Amino acid sequence: MKLDALYGPVQQDLDLVEEAIDALRDLDFQPMAEMLDLVLAARGKRLRPALALLAGKFGRYRLDLLVPLAASIELLHTATLVHDDVIDNAATRRGRPTANSVLRNTTTVMLGDYMFAHAADFAACTGNIEVIRLFSQTVMTIARGEIVQDMTAYDTRQTVRQYLQRIAGKTASLFATACQGGALLTGASEDRVEALKDYGYNLGMAFQIVDDILDFVGDEQEMGKPVGSDLTQGTLTLPSLLLLDRYPKSNPIRKLFARRRRQEYLSQAVEMIRQSDIPRESYQMAESFAKEAEEALTALPRNAARRTLRDILAYVLERRS
Amino acid sequence: MKLDALYGPVQQDLDLVEEAIDALRDLDFQPMAEMLDLVLAARGKRLRPALALLAGKFGRYRLDLLVPLAASIELLHTATLVHDDVIDNAATRRGRPTANSVLRNTTTVMLGDYMFAHAADFAACTGNIEVIRLFSQTVMTIARGEIVQDMTAYDTRQTVRQYLQRIAGKTASLFATACQGGALLTGASEDRVEALKDYGYNLGMAFQIVDDILDFVGDEQEMGKPVGSDLTQGTLTLPSLLLLDRYPKSNPIRKLFARRRRQEYLSQAVEMIRQSDIPRESYQMAESFAKEAEEALTALPRNAARRTLRDILAYVLERRS
Repeated sequence: MKLDALYGPVQQDLDLVEEAIDALRDLDFQPMAEMLDLVLAARGKRLRPALALLAGKFGRYRLDLLVPLAASIELLHTATLVHDDVIDNAATRRGRPTANSVLRNTTTVMLGDYMFAHAADFAACTGNIEVIRLFSQTVMTIARGEIVQDMTAYDTRQTVRQYLQRIAGKTASLFATACQGGALLTGASEDRVEALKDYGYNLGMAFQIVDDILDFVGDEQEMGKPVGSDLTQGTLTLPSLLLLDRYPKSNPIRKLFARRRRQEYLSQAVEMIRQSDIPRESYQMAESFAKEAEEALTALPRNAARRTLRDILAYVLERRS
Repeated sequence: MKLDALYGPVQQDLDLVEEAIDALRDLDFQPMAEMLDLVLAARGKRLRPALALLAGKFGRYRLDLLVPLAASIELLHTATLVHDDVIDNAATRRGRPTANSVLRNTTTVMLGDYMFAHAADFAACTGNIEVIRLFSQTVMTIARGEIVQDMTAYDTRQTVRQYLQRIAGKTASLFATACQGGALLTGASEDRVEALKDYGYNLGMAFQIVDDILDFVGDEQEMGKPVGSDLTQGTLTLPSLLLLDRYPKSNPIRKLFARRRRQEYLSQAVEMIRQSDIPRESYQMAESFAKEAEEALTALPRNAARRTLRDILAYVLERRS
């Protein structure tokens, strides 16, 4: 499934979201306009804004409200990436240089803040207090998830359950909010709002698990980042936690962490994971979340948007980057 | 004028604001609760939340709306300081260790984000879309001011006019928003809203200029930070711009910047400023903003809050830290 065709009934409306976000660059302060060019050019799959629009198809589709919501969600996501880059000193993301490798750290933090604030302003443009609070609370949840991830870095005692909690906050919450927000803005019934939120949450869990698998089994070229980058930063994800589980004593991850960032142990850990059934087992977990998401869709009327939400599930499981 | 008595009719209500902010620490994730303890313990004069409450005294005083607004303003300010500390690697602020000197950089960015989001949530609790948008746009203005400051660091070509624009964004905007927001929430007439916004803006300008003077002439002990810290970070403020103006050729600031962070030239610049009439001239500029602020107050009814707003003006000019 090509991304270009994936978003079905909202494909064209996504251009309006792009336009809203692109308007951020219209600033009379040229250096800042250039910085925004840099970070906005690196935008990705537009999955989250598409979800917001699609969720609006189960009530009265209000494009005037859905576009600001979708722009808010996408911009928040991009702002998170900018702040992530400050943190990790990652040199590339999505195959492009990160803001932080071109700008000073100091400027990057403030640029992220500006984008967060603009995202909040987009959310406020919906005029819906429930959606606005959903937005601010989601930012809290994401930040908290990132803090937990950071504080548990290099900690090999953490469990798969803790990992799932972490990615629920860091990733799934925003997918859930995109769907819930779109539903709320269009006056969908409470059942449908719940079903869409449920779908979004489970899709987000599956998405992040696949992301974490691809970090080990993916192609560096396609992904635009080096294999094993999570481990390099001390972040333990599902595949690495499963590897620790299977080899509790002598494990290249422990050696890597003890001596920190040693290429030799990293390659060894990546190879062990690639050659084991860990990717398959991890995919099974992603599939079980996708199954939950699909289940949630049954509460919704059969329409083009529902079919697209199903297609997105399939895409998320099959994607290679 | 002691700070304890300064805030007159809203003195006690400020405790409710403190309680709202303190509630952030009630988290089931202990490490994060401790981090919040750390950054919230260092809170300052409570000037901004006091302004929000005082501005509410010119309409129907709605404490249930004003407390979330005031908490939002104060928390936003504190979040800005947290992110500032990431940037500057400042070792102390208000005499305490900064978040960044105790926590990892990475955690500090996310902690600031969490606080920003919580501040946005407080703003949303007012249920007033105009106030909510005022909040998000103020965050944009502040971030932009900080970015400009950062991009013009070490640039000796900048003018006093650019300095004033910069502090308008970085500081005065939040003072104005505190006042304007409080007025809006209490249904004050348009004239009064404008007058309070105007007062807040000019008070904020005076406040920041005095801050920048104290960075040169203040007592390290009282201020809780080293003298000349702005120059150390390449930030040119009113006193240093005036010094550059008077000695365009051979100037310790140019030497300091050319060789970066040399203690010798820093001390020389500080001494030259202290012994010149630059502090007096800078104070005159602060006073002229304070005068504007006082002028704005004449549009308001004479009540205890108006008298307090006048006292605050006097305090801001007289303060030593």
